[in-house]
Amino acid sequence: MFTRNQVVAAPVVVGRKHLEANGGSVRVVIVNAGNANCATGEAGYSACTDVCFAAAETFSCEGPEVIPSSTGIIGVPLPAEKLIAALPDLKAGLGATPEHVELFARAIMTTDTKPKVAHTQVEVDGKQVSLFGVCKGAGMIHPQLSPSARPLTAARAPHATMLVYLFTDLEIKPLYIEHLLDAAVEPSFNSISIDGDTSTNDTVLMLASGASGAVYSPPHHAHFQAALNEVCRSLAHQIVDDGEGVTHVVTLQINRARSAAEARQMAKSIAHSPLCKTSWSSADPNWGRVLAAAGYSGVSFDPAKVKIHIGEHPVFEFGTVSPRFDKAATHATMLQREFTITLDLDQGDASCRFLTCDLTAEYVAINADYST
Amino acid sequence: MFTRNQVVAAPVVVGRKHLEANGGSVRVVIVNAGNANCATGEAGYSACTDVCFAAAETFSCEGPEVIPSSTGIIGVPLPAEKLIAALPDLKAGLGATPEHVELFARAIMTTDTKPKVAHTQVEVDGKQVSLFGVCKGAGMIHPQLSPSARPLTAARAPHATMLVYLFTDLEIKPLYIEHLLDAAVEPSFNSISIDGDTSTNDTVLMLASGASGAVYSPPHHAHFQAALNEVCRSLAHQIVDDGEGVTHVVTLQINRARSAAEARQMAKSIAHSPLCKTSWSSADPNWGRVLAAAGYSGVSFDPAKVKIHIGEHPVFEFGTVSPRFDKAATHATMLQREFTITLDLDQGDASCRFLTCDLTAEYVAINADYST
Repeated sequence: MFTRNQVVAAPVVVGRKHLEANGGSVRVVIVNAGNANCATGEAGYSACTDVCFAAAETFSCEGPEVIPSSTGIIGVPLPAEKLIAALPDLKAGLGATPEHVELFARAIMTTDTKPKVAHTQVEVDGKQVSLFGVCKGAGMIHPQLSPSARPLTAARAPHATMLVYLFTDLEIKPLYIEHLLDAAVEPSFNSISIDGDTSTNDTVLMLASGASGAVYSPPHHAHFQAALNEVCRSLAHQIVDDGEGVTHVVTLQINRARSAAEARQMAKSIAHSPLCKTSWSSADPNWGRVLAAAGYSGVSFDPAKVKIHIGEHPVFEFGTVSPRFDKAATHATMLQREFTITLDLDQGDASCRFLTCDLTAEYVAINADYST
Repeated sequence: MFTRNQVVAAPVVVGRKHLEANGGSVRVVIVNAGNANCATGEAGYSACTDVCFAAAETFSCEGPEVIPSSTGIIGVPLPAEKLIAALPDLKAGLGATPEHVELFARAIMTTDTKPKVAHTQVEVDGKQVSLFGVCKGAGMIHPQLSPSARPLTAARAPHATMLVYLFTDLEIKPLYIEHLLDAAVEPSFNSISIDGDTSTNDTVLMLASGASGAVYSPPHHAHFQAALNEVCRSLAHQIVDDGEGVTHVVTLQINRARSAAEARQMAKSIAHSPLCKTSWSSADPNWGRVLAAAGYSGVSFDPAKVKIHIGEHPVFEFGTVSPRFDKAATHATMLQREFTITLDLDQGDASCRFLTCDLTAEYVAINADYST
């Protein structure tokens, strides 16, 4: 799954091409941090391809079996020779210990302050199957992923390079992976936003080795999907929690909307409102800003029917402040690192759960100084 | 003209009703700062109406001839008795000097750091006609005004209460005012954004006294429209320039788009990108963030055909950094308080000029502390 930004980096173009050419056989993932290799023209594609083919030679596979990822500054030529020169050391250092996992998780970090991994096990045909994920991302985060190359032409999408690698030792066909991943990505990575800026490089790649000896078939669907959803949700949460300058993680729960799409549209409007985000940073129970952001979301609703809760506390109902509004108690809830804001629209059966965060001076400082 | 936010404050509802009932006769404008009288339920409408009718009695006119405006915190009951108690002093203090204008301009300020006025004169039928405007607004600024009560259901709208009052001594029918205002608001107030948050209270009111003795008729259209546009543009610019925490005013010029609507959609995507806004605060010539924000705007384009300039400096062309990119010179341009970023899409004849600003830690500090 790749970003739906219309401006895509060379590794996304090359990665899509390799996935079409390799028939689902991926042997090497090569990632660099510090340079996005985006808007780098023909030289960028050549540099990316050169790295892939050098890696293929080093690891004895075909060029299209290598999937590249890059994250970092846009518009600066990728120094392919530095990546290629590092390949022998990479090969010599390969290993399968938790320490090696952490080395990889740390190597792909940019403004992340900690490595991000998630792991679960699931039984398939009496065999233990592992599902493991590692990711990076802290800013330019509002992934809008899709399996196709179809660019985003409808809704507003976010930006912060997010790279996610999922590994399982199950044996499973690429087509099944795509279906499972599609379903897992929507409520996880496609339902988070740190700053509303959608990256040119977002990538979610899932690899299956078959090493467990267990073979996937449709009857395992619900079971394996649940495990995959759990890993993706954990990684998505870790990304928001480690977002640039974040001091509060906020879950927006939109209930009784006409459609899930409208619920999500409203959640994004609130998630991207600087006034909501700054009020969360100071634990200010300013439900008026939430209501105003819902009001300009483009989703039609009757304000008199809407109910808003912060945590368990009612704050808005019947068109005005709740008579049960307890400012001190609501403030206390918002002083916690995590809390939920619930909007009940009373106009349908659809809902959406969206994860976002506050906006702090630290975010501004990081991004005024750091060139992505 | 009123906000298109679906959540509207009591004074907007009452103001619309009064404008329908009074046949275009407005005698009193009563404005309070500190309380938006929004999401205040039936009590809010009563409080607003009480103030209007008390003002009508004080100033010897009909209730619907009073137009109310409020700006400030959402969801707190309006203390009508305080406003009503102030009416005798307001009446006693009335005057027509520049000092009285400044008193009004200062009284309506919230987080504004300076009063905002604009003035021009225009000759109509050999008589000098004055056109004068006063406004407030510094945060929750992304006005999306329309003359009707039709709420916003399509695009994302901005938010920061903006109040604008335009006065002329021309004699002109309300219908002509509406047409002139509609045309003047689009390239001015509807083409600015500080934080992308559209207020529940935005109002632009234009009043004509006829005191000059000059009478408007259609042949004066172009002449008077140009003068009105000039005043509105000046006020809109003053609002962005005095935006909360603003250190840079940025003009986004989108050229050769397929339609003005698409050009504006792209401009807003860039104007609302926290990554673009933070890079402007440090004069970082980070054109990659601008390109990425254009890429997720939902407007389809070919990145290989796009040219981006910052000031006079080419930064992006032919899909990559311009060979003429001069980082130091571009940085020097961005160190100025005002600069322009131009995107040439090479796909049509339409264009858009949109005014926005940077995002600084000061904006965060103001809005983490200040409840709107």
